[in-house]
Amino acid sequence: MSTPGTNYARSGTARRTSRREHRMNDTPGPDDATDPAPRWLTPHELRTWVRLAAVVELLPGVLDTQLQRDAELTHFEYFTLAMLSEAPERTLRMTALASRTNATLPRLSHVVSRLEARGFVRREPCAQDRRATNAVLTDAGWEKVVATAPGHVATVRQHVVDALTPEQVEQLGEITAALLTRLDPDGRMAALAYANEELPDAP
Amino acid sequence: MSTPGTNYARSGTARRTSRREHRMNDTPGPDDATDPAPRWLTPHELRTWVRLAAVVELLPGVLDTQLQRDAELTHFEYFTLAMLSEAPERTLRMTALASRTNATLPRLSHVVSRLEARGFVRREPCAQDRRATNAVLTDAGWEKVVATAPGHVATVRQHVVDALTPEQVEQLGEITAALLTRLDPDGRMAALAYANEELPDAP
Repeated sequence: MSTPGTNYARSGTARRTSRREHRMNDTPGPDDATDPAPRWLTPHELRTWVRLAAVVELLPGVLDTQLQRDAELTHFEYFTLAMLSEAPERTLRMTALASRTNATLPRLSHVVSRLEARGFVRREPCAQDRRATNAVLTDAGWEKVVATAPGHVATVRQHVVDALTPEQVEQLGEITAALLTRLDPDGRMAALAYANEELPDAP
Repeated sequence: MSTPGTNYARSGTARRTSRREHRMNDTPGPDDATDPAPRWLTPHELRTWVRLAAVVELLPGVLDTQLQRDAELTHFEYFTLAMLSEAPERTLRMTALASRTNATLPRLSHVVSRLEARGFVRREPCAQDRRATNAVLTDAGWEKVVATAPGHVATVRQHVVDALTPEQVEQLGEITAALLTRLDPDGRMAALAYANEELPDAP
Protein backbone atom coordinates (compact mmCIF):
# COMPACT_ATOMS: atom_id res chain seq x y z
CA MET A 1 0.00 0.00 0.00
CA SER A 2 2.86 2.36 -0.72
CA THR A 3 1.50 3.75 -3.98
CA PRO A 4 0.80 7.42 -3.44
CA GLY A 5 -2.87 8.09 -3.05
CA THR A 6 -3.90 4.65 -1.93
CA ASN A 7 -4.36 5.71 1.64
CA TYR A 8 -6.14 8.94 0.90
CA ALA A 9 -9.19 8.08 2.95
CA ARG A 10 -7.14 7.72 6.08
CA SER A 11 -4.39 10.18 5.24
CA GLY A 12 -5.73 12.55 7.84
CA THR A 13 -4.20 10.60 10.68
CA ALA A 14 -1.19 9.18 8.87
CA ARG A 15 1.22 10.88 11.21
CA ARG A 16 -0.75 10.23 14.35
CA THR A 17 -1.16 6.45 14.18
CA SER A 18 0.54 3.68 12.29
CA ARG A 19 -1.00 1.76 9.43
CA ARG A 20 -1.23 -1.30 11.63
CA GLU A 21 -3.22 0.60 14.18
CA HIS A 22 -5.56 1.79 11.43
CA ARG A 23 -6.17 -1.76 10.35
CA MET A 24 -6.82 -2.82 13.88
CA ASN A 25 -9.30 -0.04 14.19
CA ASP A 26 -11.14 -1.34 11.24
CA THR A 27 -13.68 -3.40 13.09
CA PRO A 28 -17.44 -2.98 12.96
CA GLY A 29 -18.70 -0.22 15.18
CA PRO A 30 -21.12 2.66 15.29
CA ASP A 31 -21.19 4.76 12.15
CA ASP A 32 -20.68 8.23 13.52
CA ALA A 33 -18.81 11.03 11.80
CA THR A 34 -17.77 12.40 15.18
CA ASP A 35 -16.48 9.03 16.41
CA PRO A 36 -13.02 9.68 17.89
CA ALA A 37 -11.73 6.47 16.24
CA PRO A 38 -13.00 6.58 12.65
CA ARG A 39 -13.42 3.26 10.92
CA TRP A 40 -10.85 3.75 8.19
CA LEU A 41 -11.27 1.71 5.04
CA THR A 42 -9.47 -1.62 4.73
CA PRO A 43 -7.07 -1.96 1.79
CA HIS A 44 -9.68 -3.94 -0.16
CA GLU A 45 -12.42 -1.45 0.55
CA LEU A 46 -10.13 1.44 -0.33
CA ARG A 47 -9.11 -0.12 -3.64
CA THR A 48 -12.74 -0.64 -4.62
CA TRP A 49 -13.68 2.85 -3.51
CA VAL A 50 -10.88 4.56 -5.46
CA ARG A 51 -11.93 2.66 -8.58
CA LEU A 52 -15.61 3.42 -8.11
CA ALA A 53 -14.80 7.10 -7.57
CA ALA A 54 -12.82 7.05 -10.83
CA VAL A 55 -15.75 5.47 -12.70
CA VAL A 56 -18.11 8.09 -11.29
CA GLU A 57 -15.66 10.78 -12.37
CA LEU A 58 -15.02 9.46 -15.90
CA LEU A 59 -18.30 7.91 -17.05
CA PRO A 60 -20.36 11.12 -17.36
CA GLY A 61 -17.71 12.63 -19.62
CA VAL A 62 -17.73 9.61 -21.94
CA LEU A 63 -21.53 9.70 -22.23
CA ASP A 64 -21.67 13.45 -22.67
CA THR A 65 -18.87 13.53 -25.26
CA GLN A 66 -20.62 11.10 -27.61
CA LEU A 67 -24.04 12.70 -27.20
CA GLN A 68 -22.73 16.25 -27.55
CA ARG A 69 -20.77 15.31 -30.66
CA ASP A 70 -23.53 13.36 -32.37
CA ALA A 71 -26.70 15.02 -31.06
CA GLU A 72 -25.76 18.21 -29.20
CA LEU A 73 -27.33 16.79 -26.07
CA THR A 74 -25.93 16.15 -22.59
CA HIS A 75 -26.59 12.69 -21.16
CA PHE A 76 -29.02 14.23 -18.72
CA GLU A 77 -30.91 15.92 -21.58
CA TYR A 78 -31.03 12.65 -23.54
CA PHE A 79 -32.18 10.74 -20.49
CA THR A 80 -34.95 13.29 -19.93
CA LEU A 81 -36.18 12.98 -23.53
CA ALA A 82 -35.93 9.19 -23.37
CA MET A 83 -37.99 8.99 -20.18
CA LEU A 84 -40.72 11.05 -21.85
CA SER A 85 -40.55 8.88 -24.98
CA GLU A 86 -41.46 5.85 -22.84
CA ALA A 87 -44.34 7.48 -20.99
CA PRO A 88 -48.02 7.11 -21.95
CA GLU A 89 -48.85 9.85 -24.46
CA ARG A 90 -45.20 10.86 -24.09
CA THR A 91 -46.25 12.95 -21.11
CA LEU A 92 -45.17 13.06 -17.47
CA ARG A 93 -45.76 15.40 -14.59
CA MET A 94 -42.66 17.38 -13.85
CA THR A 95 -42.43 15.78 -10.39
CA ALA A 96 -42.54 12.26 -11.89
CA LEU A 97 -40.01 13.20 -14.54
CA ALA A 98 -37.68 14.52 -11.81
CA SER A 99 -37.93 11.17 -10.03
CA ARG A 100 -37.15 9.22 -13.20
CA THR A 101 -34.13 11.36 -14.00
CA ASN A 102 -32.73 11.28 -10.42
CA ALA A 103 -32.94 15.07 -10.35
CA THR A 104 -34.26 17.77 -8.09
CA LEU A 105 -37.21 19.68 -9.49
CA PRO A 106 -35.22 22.94 -9.90
CA ARG A 107 -32.50 21.15 -11.86
CA LEU A 108 -35.01 19.37 -14.06
CA SER A 109 -36.93 22.59 -14.63
CA HIS A 110 -33.78 24.28 -15.88
CA VAL A 111 -33.06 21.46 -18.32
CA VAL A 112 -36.65 21.28 -19.55
CA SER A 113 -36.48 24.99 -20.30
CA ARG A 114 -33.48 24.39 -22.52
CA LEU A 115 -35.20 21.46 -24.27
CA GLU A 116 -38.32 23.58 -24.69
CA ALA A 117 -36.29 26.32 -26.38
CA ARG A 118 -35.06 23.73 -28.89
CA GLY A 119 -38.59 22.51 -29.60
CA PHE A 120 -38.17 19.01 -28.13
CA VAL A 121 -40.47 19.43 -25.12
CA ARG A 122 -43.39 21.61 -24.19
CA ARG A 123 -44.91 22.32 -20.81
CA GLU A 124 -48.65 22.43 -20.23
CA PRO A 125 -50.99 22.42 -17.23
CA CYS A 126 -52.02 18.97 -16.01
CA ALA A 127 -55.70 18.32 -16.86
CA GLN A 128 -56.23 16.23 -13.70
CA ASP A 129 -54.54 18.65 -11.31
CA ARG A 130 -54.41 22.26 -12.34
CA ARG A 131 -51.67 23.02 -9.82
CA ALA A 132 -49.37 20.55 -11.57
CA THR A 133 -47.39 20.96 -14.78
CA ASN A 134 -46.82 18.28 -17.40
CA ALA A 135 -43.83 17.92 -19.68
CA VAL A 136 -44.76 16.61 -23.14
CA LEU A 137 -42.36 15.25 -25.76
CA THR A 138 -43.01 16.97 -29.10
CA ASP A 139 -42.80 15.18 -32.45
CA ALA A 140 -39.41 16.81 -32.96
CA GLY A 141 -38.35 15.50 -29.55
CA TRP A 142 -39.48 11.99 -30.47
CA GLU A 143 -37.55 12.09 -33.72
CA LYS A 144 -34.51 13.30 -31.76
CA VAL A 145 -34.69 10.27 -29.47
CA VAL A 146 -35.16 7.91 -32.44
CA ALA A 147 -32.12 9.36 -34.18
CA THR A 148 -29.95 9.46 -31.04
CA ALA A 149 -30.68 6.13 -29.33
CA PRO A 150 -28.51 3.80 -31.48
CA GLY A 151 -25.30 5.77 -31.00
CA HIS A 152 -25.96 6.15 -27.30
CA VAL A 153 -26.60 2.45 -26.78
CA ALA A 154 -23.43 1.63 -28.70
CA THR A 155 -21.52 3.88 -26.29
CA VAL A 156 -23.09 2.22 -23.25
CA ARG A 157 -22.19 -1.21 -24.66
CA GLN A 158 -18.65 -0.23 -25.55
CA HIS A 159 -17.78 1.43 -22.25
CA VAL A 160 -19.88 -0.48 -19.76
CA VAL A 161 -21.98 -3.50 -20.66
CA ASP A 162 -19.62 -5.27 -23.05
CA ALA A 163 -16.76 -4.87 -20.55
CA LEU A 164 -18.59 -7.20 -18.17
CA THR A 165 -19.52 -10.88 -18.14
CA PRO A 166 -23.23 -11.71 -17.82
CA GLU A 167 -22.49 -12.74 -14.23
CA GLN A 168 -20.91 -9.36 -13.53
CA VAL A 169 -23.92 -7.60 -15.04
CA GLU A 170 -26.05 -9.42 -12.48
CA GLN A 171 -23.62 -8.66 -9.65
CA LEU A 172 -23.52 -4.99 -10.58
CA GLY A 173 -27.31 -4.93 -10.67
CA GLU A 174 -27.43 -6.22 -7.08
CA ILE A 175 -24.63 -3.92 -5.94
CA THR A 176 -26.13 -0.78 -7.43
CA ALA A 177 -29.51 -1.70 -5.95
CA ALA A 178 -27.83 -1.90 -2.53
CA LEU A 179 -26.11 1.45 -3.07
CA LEU A 180 -29.35 3.11 -4.13
CA THR A 181 -31.00 2.15 -0.84
CA ARG A 182 -28.34 4.37 0.77
CA LEU A 183 -28.09 7.09 -1.85
CA ASP A 184 -31.86 7.42 -2.18
CA PRO A 185 -33.12 6.15 1.20
CA ASP A 186 -36.61 7.61 0.75
CA GLY A 187 -37.00 5.95 -2.62
CA ARG A 188 -37.90 9.22 -4.30
CA MET A 189 -36.00 8.30 -7.46
CA ALA A 190 -37.36 5.65 -9.78
CA ALA A 191 -34.24 3.65 -10.62
CA LEU A 192 -34.66 1.26 -7.72
CA ALA A 193 -38.13 0.30 -8.88
CA TYR A 194 -36.30 -2.01 -11.25
CA ALA A 195 -35.51 -4.20 -8.27
CA ASN A 196 -39.14 -5.17 -8.01
CA GLU A 197 -39.72 -5.90 -11.63
CA GLU A 198 -40.10 -9.40 -12.91
CA LEU A 199 -37.41 -10.20 -15.36
CA PRO A 200 -36.72 -13.32 -17.36
CA ASP A 201 -34.16 -15.65 -15.81
CA ALA A 202 -30.64 -14.37 -15.85
CA PRO A 203 -28.67 -15.51 -18.89
CA MET B 1 -40.93 -4.35 -18.86
CA SER B 2 -43.95 -2.07 -18.93
CA THR B 3 -42.71 0.37 -16.31
CA PRO B 4 -42.18 3.70 -18.00
CA GLY B 5 -38.54 4.37 -18.59
CA THR B 6 -37.32 0.82 -18.56
CA ASN B 7 -36.90 0.66 -22.30
CA TYR B 8 -35.32 4.05 -22.72
CA ALA B 9 -32.19 2.74 -24.35
CA ARG B 10 -34.13 1.26 -27.23
CA SER B 11 -37.06 3.66 -27.19
CA GLY B 12 -35.85 5.14 -30.42
CA THR B 13 -37.13 2.24 -32.45
CA ALA B 14 -40.09 1.31 -30.30
CA ARG B 15 -42.53 1.99 -33.06
CA ARG B 16 -40.44 0.48 -35.79
CA THR B 17 -39.82 -3.00 -34.44
CA SER B 18 -41.39 -5.10 -31.74
CA ARG B 19 -39.79 -5.90 -28.40
CA ARG B 20 -39.33 -9.51 -29.49
CA GLU B 21 -37.38 -8.41 -32.51
CA HIS B 22 -35.18 -6.29 -30.29
CA ARG B 23 -34.40 -9.24 -28.10
CA MET B 24 -33.62 -11.39 -31.07
CA ASN B 25 -31.28 -8.72 -32.27
CA ASP B 26 -29.47 -8.91 -29.01
CA THR B 27 -26.78 -11.33 -30.09
CA PRO B 28 -23.05 -10.69 -30.14
CA GLY B 29 -21.94 -8.75 -33.17
CA PRO B 30 -19.72 -5.91 -34.27
CA ASP B 31 -19.81 -2.90 -32.00
CA ASP B 32 -20.52 -0.14 -34.45
CA ALA B 33 -22.53 2.98 -33.72
CA THR B 34 -23.58 3.11 -37.36
CA ASP B 35 -24.74 -0.52 -37.40
CA PRO B 36 -28.21 -0.51 -39.01
CA ALA B 37 -29.38 -3.06 -36.38
CA PRO B 38 -28.17 -1.71 -33.03
CA ARG B 39 -27.57 -4.25 -30.30
CA TRP B 40 -30.18 -3.00 -27.85
CA LEU B 41 -29.69 -3.86 -24.21
CA THR B 42 -31.32 -6.97 -22.81
CA PRO B 43 -33.72 -6.44 -19.88
CA HIS B 44 -31.04 -7.50 -17.41
CA GLU B 45 -28.42 -5.25 -18.94
CA LEU B 46 -30.86 -2.37 -19.06
CA ARG B 47 -31.84 -2.78 -15.42
CA THR B 48 -28.21 -2.74 -14.35
CA TRP B 49 -27.45 0.23 -16.57
CA VAL B 50 -30.34 2.33 -15.28
CA ARG B 51 -29.24 1.64 -11.71
CA LEU B 52 -25.59 2.40 -12.44
CA ALA B 53 -26.59 5.63 -14.17
CA ALA B 54 -28.59 6.57 -11.07
CA VAL B 55 -25.61 5.87 -8.80
CA VAL B 56 -23.38 7.99 -11.02
CA GLU B 57 -25.98 10.75 -10.88
CA LEU B 58 -26.59 10.65 -7.11
CA LEU B 59 -23.24 9.75 -5.53
CA PRO B 60 -21.35 12.99 -6.33
CA GLY B 61 -24.10 15.03 -4.69
CA VAL B 62 -23.94 12.96 -1.50
CA LEU B 63 -20.15 13.35 -1.28
CA ASP B 64 -20.22 17.03 -2.11
CA THR B 65 -23.04 17.81 0.31
CA GLN B 66 -21.18 16.42 3.33
CA LEU B 67 -17.86 17.98 2.38
CA GLN B 68 -19.36 21.36 1.54
CA ARG B 69 -21.29 21.42 4.78
CA ASP B 70 -18.44 20.29 7.02
CA ALA B 71 -15.35 21.59 5.20
CA GLU B 72 -16.48 23.93 2.40
CA LEU B 73 -14.81 21.62 -0.10
CA THR B 74 -16.13 19.77 -3.14
CA HIS B 75 -15.27 16.09 -3.34
CA PHE B 76 -12.91 16.85 -6.19
CA GLU B 77 -11.13 19.50 -4.07
CA TYR B 78 -10.85 17.10 -1.14
CA PHE B 79 -9.56 14.32 -3.37
CA THR B 80 -6.93 16.68 -4.79
CA LEU B 81 -5.72 17.66 -1.31
CA ALA B 82 -5.75 14.03 -0.19
CA MET B 83 -3.64 12.88 -3.16
CA LEU B 84 -1.06 15.53 -2.30
CA SER B 85 -1.13 14.52 1.37
CA GLU B 86 -0.03 11.00 0.36
CA ALA B 87 2.77 12.06 -1.96
CA PRO B 88 6.45 12.24 -0.95
CA GLU B 89 7.09 15.71 0.49
CA ARG B 90 3.40 16.34 -0.16
CA THR B 91 4.36 17.36 -3.68
CA LEU B 92 3.29 16.18 -7.14
CA ARG B 93 3.78 17.45 -10.65
CA MET B 94 0.58 18.89 -11.98
CA THR B 95 0.46 16.23 -14.70
CA ALA B 96 0.77 13.43 -12.11
CA LEU B 97 -1.85 15.06 -9.90
CA ALA B 98 -4.20 15.26 -12.88
CA SER B 99 -3.76 11.53 -13.45
CA ARG B 100 -4.46 10.73 -9.80
CA THR B 101 -7.60 12.84 -9.73
CA ASN B 102 -8.95 11.49 -13.05
CA ALA B 103 -8.97 15.03 -14.39
CA THR B 104 -7.80 16.90 -17.43
CA LEU B 105 -4.97 19.32 -16.79
CA PRO B 106 -7.11 22.41 -17.46
CA ARG B 107 -9.75 21.24 -15.01
CA LEU B 108 -7.17 20.44 -12.35
CA SER B 109 -5.42 23.76 -12.91
CA HIS B 110 -8.67 25.59 -12.27
CA VAL B 111 -9.26 23.72 -9.02
CA VAL B 112 -5.67 24.17 -7.83
CA SER B 113 -6.05 27.91 -8.35
CA ARG B 114 -9.05 27.90 -6.03
CA LEU B 115 -7.17 25.84 -3.44
CA GLU B 116 -4.17 28.15 -3.77
CA ALA B 117 -6.36 31.18 -3.09
CA ARG B 118 -7.47 29.51 0.16
CA GLY B 119 -3.89 28.79 1.21
CA PHE B 120 -4.11 24.98 1.00
CA VAL B 121 -1.81 24.50 -2.00
CA ARG B 122 1.00 26.41 -3.64
CA ARG B 123 2.50 26.03 -7.09
CA GLU B 124 6.23 26.12 -7.71
CA PRO B 125 8.59 25.22 -10.55
CA CYS B 126 9.82 21.62 -10.57
CA ALA B 127 13.50 21.50 -9.59
CA GLN B 128 14.16 18.51 -11.88
CA ASP B 129 12.37 19.90 -14.91
CA ARG B 130 12.01 23.63 -15.14
CA ARG B 131 9.28 23.36 -17.74
CA ALA B 132 7.11 21.48 -15.25
CA THR B 133 5.09 22.83 -12.34
CA ASN B 134 4.66 21.17 -8.97
CA ALA B 135 1.68 21.43 -6.66
CA VAL B 136 2.65 21.41 -2.98
CA LEU B 137 0.32 20.88 -0.02
CA THR B 138 0.84 23.64 2.55
CA ASP B 139 0.69 23.07 6.30
CA ALA B 140 -2.78 24.60 6.27
CA GLY B 141 -3.72 22.17 3.50
CA TRP B 142 -2.41 19.24 5.54
CA GLU B 143 -4.40 20.31 8.57
CA LYS B 144 -7.47 20.64 6.36
CA VAL B 145 -7.10 17.02 5.21
CA VAL B 146 -6.53 15.82 8.78
CA ALA B 147 -9.67 17.60 9.97
CA THR B 148 -11.80 16.53 7.02
CA ALA B 149 -10.89 12.86 6.51
CA PRO B 150 -12.93 11.27 9.33
CA GLY B 151 -16.26 12.79 8.27
CA HIS B 152 -15.59 11.95 4.63
CA VAL B 153 -14.73 8.32 5.38
CA ALA B 154 -17.87 8.02 7.49
CA THR B 155 -19.88 9.23 4.49
CA VAL B 156 -18.19 6.73 2.17
CA ARG B 157 -18.92 3.94 4.66
CA GLN B 158 -22.52 4.95 5.20
CA HIS B 159 -23.44 5.38 1.54
CA VAL B 160 -21.22 2.86 -0.20
CA VAL B 161 -18.97 0.43 1.65
CA ASP B 162 -21.25 -0.57 4.50
CA ALA B 163 -24.11 -1.17 2.04
CA LEU B 164 -22.14 -4.07 0.56
CA THR B 165 -21.02 -7.49 1.76
CA PRO B 166 -17.26 -8.18 1.70
CA GLU B 167 -17.91 -10.39 -1.33
CA GLN B 168 -19.66 -7.52 -3.11
CA VAL B 169 -16.77 -5.19 -2.30
CA GLU B 170 -14.50 -7.65 -4.13
CA GLN B 171 -16.95 -8.03 -7.02
CA LEU B 172 -17.27 -4.27 -7.38
CA GLY B 173 -13.47 -3.97 -7.35
CA GLU B 174 -13.24 -6.38 -10.30
CA ILE B 175 -16.17 -4.76 -12.11
CA THR B 176 -14.85 -1.21 -11.77
CA ALA B 177 -11.41 -2.39 -12.91
CA ALA B 178 -13.04 -3.81 -16.04
CA LEU B 179 -14.95 -0.58 -16.64
CA LEU B 180 -11.82 1.52 -16.22
CA THR B 181 -10.09 -0.40 -19.01
CA ARG B 182 -12.85 1.00 -21.25
CA LEU B 183 -13.27 4.43 -19.69
CA ASP B 184 -9.52 5.04 -19.53
CA PRO B 185 -8.16 2.78 -22.29
CA ASP B 186 -4.77 4.49 -22.40
CA GLY B 187 -4.33 4.09 -18.65
CA ARG B 188 -3.62 7.78 -18.17
CA MET B 189 -5.51 7.87 -14.89
CA ALA B 190 -4.03 6.24 -11.82
CA ALA B 191 -7.04 4.46 -10.33
CA LEU B 192 -6.46 1.26 -12.27
CA ALA B 193 -2.96 0.92 -10.86
CA TYR B 194 -4.68 -0.57 -7.86
CA ALA B 195 -5.36 -3.67 -9.95
CA ASN B 196 -1.68 -4.49 -9.91
CA GLU B 197 -1.09 -3.95 -6.24
CA GLU B 198 -0.52 -6.77 -3.85
CA LEU B 199 -3.19 -6.83 -1.25
CA PRO B 200 -3.75 -9.11 1.69
CA ASP B 201 -6.17 -11.94 1.05
CA ALA B 202 -9.76 -10.89 0.70
CA PRO B 203 -11.69 -11.08 3.95
